[in-house]
Amino acid sequence: MAKEKNLTPRSEDFSSWYNELVLRSELADYSPVRGSMVIRPWGYTIWENMQRALDDMFKATGHENAYFPLLIPISFIEKEKEHVEGFKPELAIVTNAGGKELEDPLAIRPTSETIIMAMYAKWIQSYRDLPLLLNQWSNVVRWELRTRPFLRTSEFLWQEGHTAHASSGEAEEHTKLMLNVYRTFMEDWMAMPPVTGLKSDSEKFAGAVRSYSCEAMMQDNRALQSGTSHFLGQNFSKQFQLTFQTEKGNEEYAWNTSWGVSTRLVGGLVMTHGDDQGLVLPPKLSPVQVVIVPILKGEDHGPVLEKADAIKDALTAKGIRVKIDARDFMSPGNKYYEWERKGVPFRMEIGPKDMATGQVVLAKRMLFGEDSRKEFVPETEALATMENRLDEFQAQLLEAAKRRREDNSYRGIENLDELAEIIDTSGGYVFTGWSGDPAVEDIIKEKTKATLRCIPEEEFQSEKTPTRCIGGEKDSTMEVVWARAY
Amino acid sequence: MAKEKNLTPRSEDFSSWYNELVLRSELADYSPVRGSMVIRPWGYTIWENMQRALDDMFKATGHENAYFPLLIPISFIEKEKEHVEGFKPELAIVTNAGGKELEDPLAIRPTSETIIMAMYAKWIQSYRDLPLLLNQWSNVVRWELRTRPFLRTSEFLWQEGHTAHASSGEAEEHTKLMLNVYRTFMEDWMAMPPVTGLKSDSEKFAGAVRSYSCEAMMQDNRALQSGTSHFLGQNFSKQFQLTFQTEKGNEEYAWNTSWGVSTRLVGGLVMTHGDDQGLVLPPKLSPVQVVIVPILKGEDHGPVLEKADAIKDALTAKGIRVKIDARDFMSPGNKYYEWERKGVPFRMEIGPKDMATGQVVLAKRMLFGEDSRKEFVPETEALATMENRLDEFQAQLLEAAKRRREDNSYRGIENLDELAEIIDTSGGYVFTGWSGDPAVEDIIKEKTKATLRCIPEEEFQSEKTPTRCIGGEKDSTMEVVWARAY
Repeated sequence: MAKEKNLTPRSEDFSSWYNELVLRSELADYSPVRGSMVIRPWGYTIWENMQRALDDMFKATGHENAYFPLLIPISFIEKEKEHVEGFKPELAIVTNAGGKELEDPLAIRPTSETIIMAMYAKWIQSYRDLPLLLNQWSNVVRWELRTRPFLRTSEFLWQEGHTAHASSGEAEEHTKLMLNVYRTFMEDWMAMPPVTGLKSDSEKFAGAVRSYSCEAMMQDNRALQSGTSHFLGQNFSKQFQLTFQTEKGNEEYAWNTSWGVSTRLVGGLVMTHGDDQGLVLPPKLSPVQVVIVPILKGEDHGPVLEKADAIKDALTAKGIRVKIDARDFMSPGNKYYEWERKGVPFRMEIGPKDMATGQVVLAKRMLFGEDSRKEFVPETEALATMENRLDEFQAQLLEAAKRRREDNSYRGIENLDELAEIIDTSGGYVFTGWSGDPAVEDIIKEKTKATLRCIPEEEFQSEKTPTRCIGGEKDSTMEVVWARAY
Repeated sequence: MAKEKNLTPRSEDFSSWYNELVLRSELADYSPVRGSMVIRPWGYTIWENMQRALDDMFKATGHENAYFPLLIPISFIEKEKEHVEGFKPELAIVTNAGGKELEDPLAIRPTSETIIMAMYAKWIQSYRDLPLLLNQWSNVVRWELRTRPFLRTSEFLWQEGHTAHASSGEAEEHTKLMLNVYRTFMEDWMAMPPVTGLKSDSEKFAGAVRSYSCEAMMQDNRALQSGTSHFLGQNFSKQFQLTFQTEKGNEEYAWNTSWGVSTRLVGGLVMTHGDDQGLVLPPKLSPVQVVIVPILKGEDHGPVLEKADAIKDALTAKGIRVKIDARDFMSPGNKYYEWERKGVPFRMEIGPKDMATGQVVLAKRMLFGEDSRKEFVPETEALATMENRLDEFQAQLLEAAKRRREDNSYRGIENLDELAEIIDTSGGYVFTGWSGDPAVEDIIKEKTKATLRCIPEEEFQSEKTPTRCIGGEKDSTMEVVWARAY
C-alpha cells in the first residue's frame, strides 16, 4: 500500500484528487451496492468525533435523542404537497416483506418530518408539552444517479433535529439558533468557516417556509452546502393535525423546525484542508493527534518501545489521542508517508540516539505552502508544549480557511458578464444585488452553472450595499452570494 | 398523564404489565408503521448509555467502528446456504428506487455478514492484515409477524461485530472473549446476570459453526436470549473468497466471528428489575440518577430553586446525573409518582422547612418487597454519601437478580414429566443431561414449549454431572438448560 503512486495534484484535477485521497487515506471505499459507500474506521472515527461534539451542543441547547422508524408509508410523504414533489423521485420503495407483497408499500426514509410529525400529534396536547426538542441520529436513503463518496451517496448518515413550538417567533428563533450551532461547530471543530444565510425560494427545502444554510468554500472555490436549518411554519402540523391547547384554551397548530448535517461534512473536511500529500485533519477531530514512530534498530527494541509507551501515557493523561506505530514489517519512511497521507497533525520519532540525548524528533503535518517542519525537541519540552501546539495547529487551519474564503470572494459586481467571467475562470463567491426575481437565478444558472447560495447574514454583507440587481433591469432589494456548488 | 390507572400487576398478567410499563414510562411508543416502534428519549438515553459502555469495552478489546451499506444484493445473502434459509423468510425487499424498477432487487440488511465479508475479501491480502476487528452500530430489519416493543420488532437497533483471523483457534478464542464482554456488561452495568453457554445445532445462528449466547432470566422465569457470539469458521470466507497469504506463503481462507446485542436489552432491563409501580433502573444506566423535586410553596421560589441548583452542581461535579423537576403546573406527589414509574434510583425533596434545618428528604426507589425508604438526611451527608448509595443500589439489584435466577433453577432433573411440570407451573431453568439427540429437543418443545437454551459454561454446571439424557433412552454426554424463552 505504501508504494502507491502519488495523488493527482489538486491543480490538475481536483475531482480525481478527491476520489483518490478518500480511497488511499482509507476514509471510505466503494461498495458492491450501487451508490452506496463503506465508511472505513479512519473516516468513521472522524464522524464519531463530529457526532460527539455536535451531540453535546444539541444537548446543551435542550434537545434529547430519540429514534423513529426507517420505513414510512408513502401516503405520509404524500401529505405535504411540496415535500412529496421534492422527495418522491428519490425514494427507495419496499414492496415485498416477509415473503409477501405489501398492500401498502413503504418508503425508506429520505428524511423524517412526516413520521415524526405523526408521533408529535399523538404526544402533544397542551402548551405545557411545548417546546418539544428532539434529535435523531440515523441513516437515510435518497436514490441518486451520480454519486461521490461522502458528498452524494444514495445512503448517508446524518442527524435530523425536529422541534415543535407554541409560536411562530419562537420556532423561527430556534431555526436560527441551530444554524448558529452548526456554524460554531464548523468553525471551532472543523476549521471550515461557512457563509451563513437564507436560501431563495427556489433552493429551499421541500416543505419549508424558509431554509437557512451554511455554505463552506472548498479549495476549488466551489460551495459545499454543509448544514441546513428549516422553519417549517405550520405546513406539516396542518397535514398531521399537530395541534395544542394554548394557555388561553384555544386549539392551535404547532410551529415546526427541522435541521440536519450529514457525513457530507467529512467530504467538506477533505476539500477544505487536504493537500497533494493527502489529508490534513484539524486536531480536534483527528482520530489520532500524535503518532509515535519508534525507530527500531538492532536487536533490542525494548527500551525504545518502553520510552514510546511512557510518552504515550504522559500525553494521554493530558487528554491527547496518541497512537504508537510499532509495526515491524514496515520502514519508518513508509510509516511517515502513511500517517502524512492520513492527516495526523503531529508525528514523533524516537530512536536509541534520541533517547541518549533526551530528545525526540517532532514533525508537524505540513500546511499549505509550508516547508517540512521537522525539529529536534527535548522530550520534556515536547510533552509540555504538545497541547499548545495542537491548539495552534487548529487555529492556523481556521485562519488559512478564512483567508482563502475572503481571497476568493468578489464584491461590488454589478454586471452579469463580469460574474460569468469570475465563475468561469477562478470560481469563488460572487456577492451581488438581487431583485428577488427567480428568472435571474435561471439565467445565471444556465449561463454559468452557478446558483444562488444564500442571502447572507448581516456580518457577511458588503460594506457598500448593492443598488442594482445583477439581472440588470431592476433595483436590488437584497445582497446575495452566487457560486458553483457541490 | 399522572392520573392514569395503575399498571396491571405482574402476578396477574406479566405480558400486559410489560406492554403498559413500556408505554407509560415513555420508553417507547407504537408507530403507525406495522411492527416498528418509536424509541422515546427515556428509552433512547438508556440505549445511549448502553452503547457508550459497550463501545468502550469493544475499543478496549481492539475493535474499531465502521459503517457498511443498508441495502444488500439478494445474491449475496443467497451465497451461504444455511444463512439464506435462516433469513430469507424475514427479508424486506426494495424493488423500486428513483422511480424505476430495479434489475436486481435489494434486501434491507437483516444482519451484515455477507456485505462485510465481500469488503474484507477486498481489504485482506496477507496475514499482516489480520486480525481485522470491526464493529458496526446500525439498524436492521427482520420482518416479524408478532411484535413486541424492544423484544421483537421488524426494525431494531443493534451492534454487530465482525472479525477475521488467521487461525481457527484464534477466531474461536475471540468468539468466547466477546461472549464474556457481553456477560460482564450485563452483570456490571445491567445487573442482569445471564447463564452463558453454547447453543445446540438446532438453535445456532444460520451460517455459524458454533453459537454462544447469554440467557438472562426474566421475572416470569422465561429466558431472554440477550447477546450472541458466533464462530463462523470458514463458511463465509469460502463463499466470498476471503483468503490471505500466510507467513509461509500459502493461500488460506480466513476464519470469522460475528456477535451482537440489540435494543432488546432494554426490554431485558424492564423485565429484570421492574415492579408493579414501574421501572427500576440500575444507576449506571439510568438517564437520571438523582431527581431533585423542589417543594415550591408560597410566593418566593427563589431560595429553594437556588438550593436545588447548588445541590445539582455539587452532585454533577461527582459525575452523578441529576435532574431538577421544577415544573410549576404539577404537584410534588404527581412528580414522585412519575419519577418512580420511570425508575430513577434516588429522589431528593427540598422545601423551605428542610432548608431551615439543613436537611433534605431522600427517597430510594423501592426494590422488591421493600417498604418505602424515605429518610431525612443532613444535606452534607446526602452529598457525601450519594456515590456510595448509587453503588449499593447497583449491587443490590445484581444480588437480587442472581438470587432470583438461582431460586428458579432446577437441577438433578432426570425425568421428562418432572421437567414438564416445572415448566408448566413455576417456569425457570431446568438443568438436565442430554445425549445430543435433536429428537429430544423436538419432544420437549412440543410437550412444554421449552427449548434448549444452552450447554452452560463450566461454572454454571451442576456439581453432580447428570448421567442420563432427559430423553430417557440414552446416556447423557453433556448438561443442558431448558426454559421457555422470548
